[in-house]
Amino acid sequence: MERILRIDMTRGEAHLEPLPEAYRLLGGRALTSRIVADEVDPLCDPLGPHNKVVLATGLLSGTALSSSNRLSAGGKSPLTGGIKEANAGGNTALRLAQWGIRAVVVEGAPPDGQWRIAVVGPEGCRLEPAGDLAGLGNYAAAGRLLARFGARAALALIGPAGEMRMNVAGIANTDPEGRPSRIAARGGLGAVMGARGLKALVVLDPGPGAGPGMAEPRRWREHARPYLQELRQSPAIARYRNYGTASTLELVNKLGGLPIRNFSRGQDAATEAITGILMAEMIAERGGMVSHACMTGCAIQCSNTWAGPDGREVTSAMEFESNTLLGANLEIFDFDAIARFVSECNDLGIDTIETGAAIGVAMAGGLVPFGDVDAVLDLFAQMRQGTPVGRLIGAGAATVGRVLGVREVPVVKGQAMAAYDPRTIKGNGVTYATSPMGADHTAGNSIGAKVDHLDPAGKVALSRELQITAALLDSLGMCSFSRAAYAPNEGHFLELLRARFGAEVTAEDLRAMALATIRTEVAFNRRAGLGPETDRLPEWMREVPLPPHGAVFDVPQEELDAIWQEA
Amino acid sequence: MERILRIDMTRGEAHLEPLPEAYRLLGGRALTSRIVADEVDPLCDPLGPHNKVVLATGLLSGTALSSSNRLSAGGKSPLTGGIKEANAGGNTALRLAQWGIRAVVVEGAPPDGQWRIAVVGPEGCRLEPAGDLAGLGNYAAAGRLLARFGARAALALIGPAGEMRMNVAGIANTDPEGRPSRIAARGGLGAVMGARGLKALVVLDPGPGAGPGMAEPRRWREHARPYLQELRQSPAIARYRNYGTASTLELVNKLGGLPIRNFSRGQDAATEAITGILMAEMIAERGGMVSHACMTGCAIQCSNTWAGPDGREVTSAMEFESNTLLGANLEIFDFDAIARFVSECNDLGIDTIETGAAIGVAMAGGLVPFGDVDAVLDLFAQMRQGTPVGRLIGAGAATVGRVLGVREVPVVKGQAMAAYDPRTIKGNGVTYATSPMGADHTAGNSIGAKVDHLDPAGKVALSRELQITAALLDSLGMCSFSRAAYAPNEGHFLELLRARFGAEVTAEDLRAMALATIRTEVAFNRRAGLGPETDRLPEWMREVPLPPHGAVFDVPQEELDAIWQEA
Repeated sequence: MERILRIDMTRGEAHLEPLPEAYRLLGGRALTSRIVADEVDPLCDPLGPHNKVVLATGLLSGTALSSSNRLSAGGKSPLTGGIKEANAGGNTALRLAQWGIRAVVVEGAPPDGQWRIAVVGPEGCRLEPAGDLAGLGNYAAAGRLLARFGARAALALIGPAGEMRMNVAGIANTDPEGRPSRIAARGGLGAVMGARGLKALVVLDPGPGAGPGMAEPRRWREHARPYLQELRQSPAIARYRNYGTASTLELVNKLGGLPIRNFSRGQDAATEAITGILMAEMIAERGGMVSHACMTGCAIQCSNTWAGPDGREVTSAMEFESNTLLGANLEIFDFDAIARFVSECNDLGIDTIETGAAIGVAMAGGLVPFGDVDAVLDLFAQMRQGTPVGRLIGAGAATVGRVLGVREVPVVKGQAMAAYDPRTIKGNGVTYATSPMGADHTAGNSIGAKVDHLDPAGKVALSRELQITAALLDSLGMCSFSRAAYAPNEGHFLELLRARFGAEVTAEDLRAMALATIRTEVAFNRRAGLGPETDRLPEWMREVPLPPHGAVFDVPQEELDAIWQEA
Repeated sequence: MERILRIDMTRGEAHLEPLPEAYRLLGGRALTSRIVADEVDPLCDPLGPHNKVVLATGLLSGTALSSSNRLSAGGKSPLTGGIKEANAGGNTALRLAQWGIRAVVVEGAPPDGQWRIAVVGPEGCRLEPAGDLAGLGNYAAAGRLLARFGARAALALIGPAGEMRMNVAGIANTDPEGRPSRIAARGGLGAVMGARGLKALVVLDPGPGAGPGMAEPRRWREHARPYLQELRQSPAIARYRNYGTASTLELVNKLGGLPIRNFSRGQDAATEAITGILMAEMIAERGGMVSHACMTGCAIQCSNTWAGPDGREVTSAMEFESNTLLGANLEIFDFDAIARFVSECNDLGIDTIETGAAIGVAMAGGLVPFGDVDAVLDLFAQMRQGTPVGRLIGAGAATVGRVLGVREVPVVKGQAMAAYDPRTIKGNGVTYATSPMGADHTAGNSIGAKVDHLDPAGKVALSRELQITAALLDSLGMCSFSRAAYAPNEGHFLELLRARFGAEVTAEDLRAMALATIRTEVAFNRRAGLGPETDRLPEWMREVPLPPHGAVFDVPQEELDAIWQEA
């Protein structure tokens, strides 16, 4: 029997509830968005007492299936003012699912204002004071917690940014080796967890053999194997294994859609210093891990570790988004600098995308110069100290633009765009504009589509299908990088779901679930006051051309406005 | 023939257009809101190229009628994201109306990014470079302009804050003696003027006898006189003359609704040091002006000048809102300190309400201590320099709260509340929540009503009528302080309008015009994405009780949502 773990921070107690029948075939994003829509007032103050943090495992989490253990975090976003789901790798979802916990709902806040941790183990869940962890960075806090609870425990925790309720704060999850590096980063859910007074959720290792129920184990084995084979043989997935996400940079730069110098040009020869191929070479040369699994049992292994010139590990992982937003977007074309920034982001527990975009806007506003590595490190130090400037960056790109008087702010619904300039990569522009998540590439990334990205035609339909697939994978707990292997194997997935739940699930059912999830999210946003007027890119991106193509975003707004009507 | 002056900042030219027939009986707020609704895309970036600044004179402006020369400024607000009208005294409206100009529309921006002034005189309007004025405070800029254009010219100008496009920036107007102290302050319209590249509008004195047309001069004289008598005899108006607005402080403190220490309590014995009676005594003792007309010919004369201990003028004017938001709200109970703050606000060209509220939130967030006069002066210095902290304050209270992580932020639609805590003064809470202007007491101030302010019953109806009357007076160009004399003399006003325009205007016509204005504004906001969800007070004001009464804001939201349906 699977359960919901409800943590009442006000009373300082937690209990397990039976999983409601209505939620039985909901996981990941489908479940967080459903619970948030069911339990959170869309008009509540996102950092006030009535918001909740919901963590959910995917429908396939807790099994041995590769890449199935993404953890979804949900709540009302302090950044967008709408509903938010952000998911991450690491082992939190695996461990929760192994204990039979489909979702965790964190509500209330300790009346004494003191930090707590929640520990999930054989006796359920108990809350403990955690004042000793207050103010600690994620690495130190994770180190202490894993020393106490065992290296195989999984953690979902917030860093100093979440404690300070910054909009850039995410919820960090530990990878198999205990690095707090897999962050459900977007939308400020770390701040919502901070507002709940919860510093960390600790999920103990239940030991070998634990797992969610399995209705038909034989059917499972029969269909898990061919999918794994496909995953191992897919060239698209081999690229993730060999270069991580970082090799996307060459492609997007070539297309002329890479955010450079606060989204002011889309291509730069200087990006040769931060290509994915070069990165893989340097990692290998220095003795880092070119390929690494962020969650136990993942066969994609797109993660990596970066070592400094002395061969000592600096951070994990170096990814396309971070390399671009914290690199090219700041005119910093230097992996060692970017690695230090990523390490700071992990330790503070913040979103590299929002933070990189915020610093880019701050540079455009003259706060610090473009290309200045030390100045960026100083900004991170100020975030840690909570100085006014540090808090300003921590409020995100939109607020930085508002304060510094910068008009060229790359946001939708107050959330920064990922590393694809929508004036060139128009399918992603549609996703940024219309996803209930705000400007979030993971909600429907078109970069892999074989289309003319500069042509506005057909991009609404493309984005819509990608958004539906993304919501589907996010609900299964599957990593989005398994998408290439999912489509040709959907039949196997239907069988895997049948094996897991003993219920027949059709492809139409899954699509309907994904679409219902998006509609639930859109409806939440509408009730929260985010009307159709917010489903659009900023005015300047329709008017200021992006070099080298001189492109503007020109997908007709009427098409954007109709995207979910036609689904 | 009255005209519209259209200033095209992009082309660097201005021309007079005939007043469209549809605008013939629209003035002040009715006209700015109508032109903004007609010409400005509700979804445009408020600080981008498509927003406009509209200045309009009232229907009775330019005449010798007391208190009839309020200047309305309108545009899309960068603070609220909705439509905005802010009006001010001074002589700008008088001079414009004397030239037969009903409204000024400023659009575009100079391609060279250089500042301009626009000079209105016998040959119409010409634009001139104004690079020499860039960065100057309002006092210095006004001094230079009046030295050049004559002491009887009127100015509408922006200070350093408007140049930096801060959300707290207003449009300052000169009083009869040339002080740039009458600011159309609320909603950041100074930033919109800054985005247009217009440093100042200079309106020359057309000399004696100039004025708008008058259809029936005899009828005018016949009905102007009894109104003036009423104005001179009204005890409510005598209070304004003797104590300015400042004596409202005693009343609101007594009611327990005065914002103290960032709206955390509503009453404080320490306010004895900043009462209106004491202020009048100190002004008289030091040789300031206890009573002063902010516009030529005003018989109310609620303005004043404040002199330092040495008898030298520090600022004009000391008002209830400033004394509270920049005083009690910061736990600064010291007129000399407040006078220096007001002087800084005038010179920077900023809203004392928004700025005081922003500093209050900053104090609650620990940026500077409550009660620290030097720290506040340093914040003003930082605003002038445009430091990150200065710009943060300049972004307004909501942004300060967002950055510093303060939940107790007294705003509606992103705009700070005036000096009445809505938990106690519930009628004003209704106005704050439902006015399309955001939290703006001038949109419908209930403090003078003989009601139990703590009782939520009847406050929606009260606010609605006050909002309609406010929109009416704002459209006539009449100062809101003439309200007490307006009601018993409405018949005379109808005759005055008939005398002025040669058209019969009924009380129902005026009410319909006022209501249509509000509906136009609400519709603009809806199209701008400010849905009914924004017509509410912040969550914490419904939950956190205000001492001494322990009151929360408890007017039912359904009543608020229905306010304009029932009108």
